[in-house]
Amino acid sequence: MKRPDYMALAFDEAEAAAVRGEVPIGAVIVQGNQVVARAGNRTRELNDATAHAEILAIREASNRLGQERLTGLDLYVTLEPCTMCAAAISLARLRRLYFGAADDKGGAVVSGVRFYASPTCHHAPDVYAGIGETRAAEMLKSFFKDRREL
Amino acid sequence: MKRPDYMALAFDEAEAAAVRGEVPIGAVIVQGNQVVARAGNRTRELNDATAHAEILAIREASNRLGQERLTGLDLYVTLEPCTMCAAAISLARLRRLYFGAADDKGGAVVSGVRFYASPTCHHAPDVYAGIGETRAAEMLKSFFKDRREL
Repeated sequence: MKRPDYMALAFDEAEAAAVRGEVPIGAVIVQGNQVVARAGNRTRELNDATAHAEILAIREASNRLGQERLTGLDLYVTLEPCTMCAAAISLARLRRLYFGAADDKGGAVVSGVRFYASPTCHHAPDVYAGIGETRAAEMLKSFFKDRREL
Repeated sequence: MKRPDYMALAFDEAEAAAVRGEVPIGAVIVQGNQVVARAGNRTRELNDATAHAEILAIREASNRLGQERLTGLDLYVTLEPCTMCAAAISLARLRRLYFGAADDKGGAVVSGVRFYASPTCHHAPDVYAGIGETRAAEMLKSFFKDRREL
């Protein structure tokens, strides 16, 4: 598969999350040409504030591969990771981070604390931003609009 | 129990982690006078870079109480939380954070990105630093010294 197709899978996960009543964000982890993990947000279902798509995907990939470090693997996520997830991506030693829309309210890569530029960040992935940006932004906007109208 | 006793439990978890060959950090979550979760680092055992003591304790407390938000609950941890954990503590809406030694290399509360002072932090716990500081620092120093001598 090509890169945009992995992001399409991440969007599928985001849509599935929305159907479950979760904030619509999805993530996929890829090793070579193989998808090793895919997840959407499950904070409500699991009653777990840490159950963001990226964290669930990292845990699934690590569990599947039996390794704590995901060196050489790439993560695709529909929205700019938050501070928790940006740091988790660093701790997991992921090689590349592809994300959709930037998130100036909660992001931590090109927004907020810009963790990968911090001296306390000991591994920074290569970052590719803005893939499917419009779709990611529209999806979140529509989700929160619907919720406000409930 | 009094506050120092909760920190003593966190130190017990840190020591148990060291015995398992994990980085010796422990955490305890308290609701009123009740310990609802206690955990030490298990990143190696679980092959999971996100399995820091604080994350495991948050997940355990949330699972036990069946709630995503730990509003009104307090977390005790032997070392200043890293960026991932500081943000997770914020997302979980914990009320107070008590920690032992500061960690200028990896911490994110009084060190590094000082996440709770960032505009992208939407809930900051009350922070009580330096409880059992010497013990926490000695424990880590001795752990890493032993590893270097292997």
